[in-house]
Amino acid sequence: MDKLIVIKIGGNIVDDEAKLSSFLQDFAFVSGPKILIHGGGKVATKIGESLGIESKYVDGRRITDAATIDLVTMVYAGLINKKVIAQLQSLNCNAIGVTGADGNLIPANKRPVKEIDYGFVGDVKSDKINAQNWSSLLEHGFTPVVAPITHDGNGQLLNTNADTIAQEVAKAMSGLYEVSLIYSFEKAGVLLDANDDATVISKIDPSSYQELKAEGKIFAGMIPKLDNAFAALNSGVKKVVIGKAEQLKDLINGESGTSITNS
Amino acid sequence: MDKLIVIKIGGNIVDDEAKLSSFLQDFAFVSGPKILIHGGGKVATKIGESLGIESKYVDGRRITDAATIDLVTMVYAGLINKKVIAQLQSLNCNAIGVTGADGNLIPANKRPVKEIDYGFVGDVKSDKINAQNWSSLLEHGFTPVVAPITHDGNGQLLNTNADTIAQEVAKAMSGLYEVSLIYSFEKAGVLLDANDDATVISKIDPSSYQELKAEGKIFAGMIPKLDNAFAALNSGVKKVVIGKAEQLKDLINGESGTSITNS
Repeated sequence: MDKLIVIKIGGNIVDDEAKLSSFLQDFAFVSGPKILIHGGGKVATKIGESLGIESKYVDGRRITDAATIDLVTMVYAGLINKKVIAQLQSLNCNAIGVTGADGNLIPANKRPVKEIDYGFVGDVKSDKINAQNWSSLLEHGFTPVVAPITHDGNGQLLNTNADTIAQEVAKAMSGLYEVSLIYSFEKAGVLLDANDDATVISKIDPSSYQELKAEGKIFAGMIPKLDNAFAALNSGVKKVVIGKAEQLKDLINGESGTSITNS
Repeated sequence: MDKLIVIKIGGNIVDDEAKLSSFLQDFAFVSGPKILIHGGGKVATKIGESLGIESKYVDGRRITDAATIDLVTMVYAGLINKKVIAQLQSLNCNAIGVTGADGNLIPANKRPVKEIDYGFVGDVKSDKINAQNWSSLLEHGFTPVVAPITHDGNGQLLNTNADTIAQEVAKAMSGLYEVSLIYSFEKAGVLLDANDDATVISKIDPSSYQELKAEGKIFAGMIPKLDNAFAALNSGVKKVVIGKAEQLKDLINGESGTSITNS
């Protein structure tokens, strides 16, 4: 089985032109088939304000009304994605920018309204991701760069969490490739003290995860990321690493960040 | 040689939700390999006004400063392109949205500054379009939908005329396919009276074109389109038709619009 590296880059890096540029240089030099998923960053909120589109959040999640799905489609799939593509092309990485609508790469359902109406938010239909579609892009030498937008198959674009997209794509591809999933962001990994990179936990397995959670040592924002990581491992993904975008090479080699393992 | 249909849809249709939707239904049903290039429409100007980005034109051409290239990238490659993709996917057309930066599909040069500084405007490097890249998308069953943005290979996105992109892509593909190039817009074709669809000229060849121009019978806005059309024919494109977006099927069959021929 060929190796495939699926890398998610966090919104805070996307917002920082110098850090993004440095990350993309490292990314371009990663050998073999690879997929990049980028978060949205704060630029959508800023452009939204200029357009009079108010950002609404419930429990840290953006509520995506009709104006907001247009806004994030413009900013994520247009501005951010195409700037990344142009930079990667200048680094001889044959990047091709996609959303989940393009090539029907990530089918999703609009999230059902329960207590909260999230609006035009998509939950990925895990079993409907066509690995062969992705693989044909990879085999031709294209490097897919994914903006966190999906679609419902009935013409509606949907806003979707980039961490989730990374996990779902990694899972779907694990039937065809030996997949490593890298979550890269502004911190050194899973930290005991969220403000101190030196407190990085180098390895987490299911039992240490339970202990750390029980002791309240895991920062709340990391829990969905870790849950995603274990879900990915349980679905065939070979390796999950969480760590600093500046250390991409070391994250891939397992010499930096937090490695999540199933044993 | 397989047939390939390259269709350009004008900005006035893109601006009109009902007309666009009806066009996309017809487009989805066109059989065989096909490529769609869409214009920008007026929505970029409108969104630009809300963002305080002034639209500047010289001789009917937009001057693309740094704020404007961001704007058109958001609107053309994000908002318009992805809405078209989602609609085509709902019609079982496996569309994939691209700019000229994606997959390095359309390399360009920033237009040199002479009397006018057009800013971040790209002139397509005709001989650098890699037909094999396009062909691999088509052969996999993807239908490329192109937003009128290119890149310079050094990381800079560039605004590029959609008519020109359609012509250049059609030319580049004519080595691998028997290419028909269709310019579809709001008029019935090349008209003797710009306000009367009944005055459509059904066929124009080089000698009748010279006559019509000499007699001042060709509306100025059509001249670049016709020059493009003859340039395409001279470079191996089999057929060029200009006509009404509502009559796509008839344009393809040669039963409507203006057919441009080399003899």
